[in-house]
Amino acid sequence: MSLPNSENASTLENAMQLMIQTFHKYSGDEGDKFTLSRAELKELLITELGNYLGNAQDKTAVDKIMGDLDSNGDGEVDFTEFIILVGALTVACNDFFLEYNDKPEKKK
Amino acid sequence: MSLPNSENASTLENAMQLMIQTFHKYSGDEGDKFTLSRAELKELLITELGNYLGNAQDKTAVDKIMGDLDSNGDGEVDFTEFIILVGALTVACNDFFLEYNDKPEKKK
Repeated sequence: MSLPNSENASTLENAMQLMIQTFHKYSGDEGDKFTLSRAELKELLITELGNYLGNAQDKTAVDKIMGDLDSNGDGEVDFTEFIILVGALTVACNDFFLEYNDKPEKKK
Repeated sequence: MSLPNSENASTLENAMQLMIQTFHKYSGDEGDKFTLSRAELKELLITELGNYLGNAQDKTAVDKIMGDLDSNGDGEVDFTEFIILVGALTVACNDFFLEYNDKPEKKK
């Protein structure tokens, strides 16, 4: 998918485009091109959020996240549901980074 | 603000880090370091979302966005409120890009 004016994008606009590109990279694999199936969601969670969601390989964890995200119960995660997940994770990361940066420097 | 493991981050993790960095780049200018004042929000909207929000220079537009975002009415936009704005804009952009890419190629 090509996005207009990517070369003039600001940092924040780049972040928005990266989220859109990531979703469509996985959603196009099978079935509805514009939603994530359970298999597509699992692939995205493992590949894209492996550093943050250590146990996404666990089938129960994927089922739990799918259940939480799939608010309309159709077994697919649409773009809005995906953005809610990424937003919630970003808020959690921000809290973590603030705490991380607040601590006095430790020697390794 | 330094973020841990940026060099190993996936595309989606990079997008999340860019959103966190953008917020703190502006929130640190004056007053509470972890919230955006009206002036900081205006600066962020003009600099980072100028391509999407063409009329953010308009004081009324900034006041309207501030009023919509500032759900707890303290005159400051916190990180969660900022992420809700970015998420809503990203969903709107995704809808736009889908429509944009759906159209047959036009000669310039």
